[in-house]
Amino acid sequence: MSDTPTLVLASRSGVRAMLLENAGVSFRVEVSPVDEAEAKMGFEGNGTALAQHLAELKAQAVSAEARDQFVIGADQVLTCDARLFDKPRDLDEARKNLSFFRGKTHTLHSAVAVARSGKIVWGHVTQAHLTMRDFSDDYLDHYIRRTGEKILSSVGCYQLEGPGVQLFERIEGDYFTILGLPLMPLFDYLRKEGALET
Amino acid sequence: MSDTPTLVLASRSGVRAMLLENAGVSFRVEVSPVDEAEAKMGFEGNGTALAQHLAELKAQAVSAEARDQFVIGADQVLTCDARLFDKPRDLDEARKNLSFFRGKTHTLHSAVAVARSGKIVWGHVTQAHLTMRDFSDDYLDHYIRRTGEKILSSVGCYQLEGPGVQLFERIEGDYFTILGLPLMPLFDYLRKEGALET
Repeated sequence: MSDTPTLVLASRSGVRAMLLENAGVSFRVEVSPVDEAEAKMGFEGNGTALAQHLAELKAQAVSAEARDQFVIGADQVLTCDARLFDKPRDLDEARKNLSFFRGKTHTLHSAVAVARSGKIVWGHVTQAHLTMRDFSDDYLDHYIRRTGEKILSSVGCYQLEGPGVQLFERIEGDYFTILGLPLMPLFDYLRKEGALET
Repeated sequence: MSDTPTLVLASRSGVRAMLLENAGVSFRVEVSPVDEAEAKMGFEGNGTALAQHLAELKAQAVSAEARDQFVIGADQVLTCDARLFDKPRDLDEARKNLSFFRGKTHTLHSAVAVARSGKIVWGHVTQAHLTMRDFSDDYLDHYIRRTGEKILSSVGCYQLEGPGVQLFERIEGDYFTILGLPLMPLFDYLRKEGALET
């Protein structure tokens, strides 16, 4: 083996690309459309199983055309009080969701899957549990005004590495799970397969 | 009370200032010299107690002159196999330390303390446990060449949000503990004291 096999990230998420890039990994991005809404509608299962299912769909959709390259799919699902939450469509919906999350613990389910030649060859799901404090309505307005549309790219309507941290009183779970790409188990798998230096 | 009391960060660390800034908190930086080497030499206790002691020294040194402002001191100590590690002085020492950490679990003890009018009024210490994988010498050389002197600013010789993540197989502990400033307990205290919006 002379060359390291190429990695393909099957995700539109700028955060996931940034995580891989910062980690010093070479990859290219390729995305095939997956009907997430349909997958969610027809899906019977918990948040963990749904995140895994969507990560696999994304990896497989690209892998069919990518030969034996390692295609990485990922997904993140948020559940709170047994309800599933999607990214907010606008700031009004973000406000509604944040009011719902306030004073409660929600769970982020982060899944990553790898496909080769159209078949899923590996997968991993982790959870993080995050408890929002009982912030005031004024604080919420102020937060939304300050952060603006940035929060629309997150299922939880926050960036923990930004002012979002002030919404929380307790966080259990690692950084990569919260950002939506469990890097360590992924890298462990890729090293075993010779796709990353050891 | 018309004005929010001023926060003072008694730390030279760029990372800690960045964490507070990103969180949207107003503060100024003021540092008084503390003889860390002497404090460490004369100190009998574990890593957690030492981190707390140093955080308190830093806060107190600045607070004596800062009246009733909230002065935040912080410190991070790394222990591995019952040995205490400081920031590496140069890349040779970084290489030696990383070889020692390899295949082992080390602990980061992150302490934060608040002083007012020269007295310590609050403190908190948390730990993170990080396990490095058994990487090759070649990998270590390559890592040090790629990251360069950046790693000298970290007691563990790595930035987890950079290529450092590839050194690890397991991380237990939250992002803010790993970066050396446990934000959530600090903010909780400051809110109770009326020094942060609620």
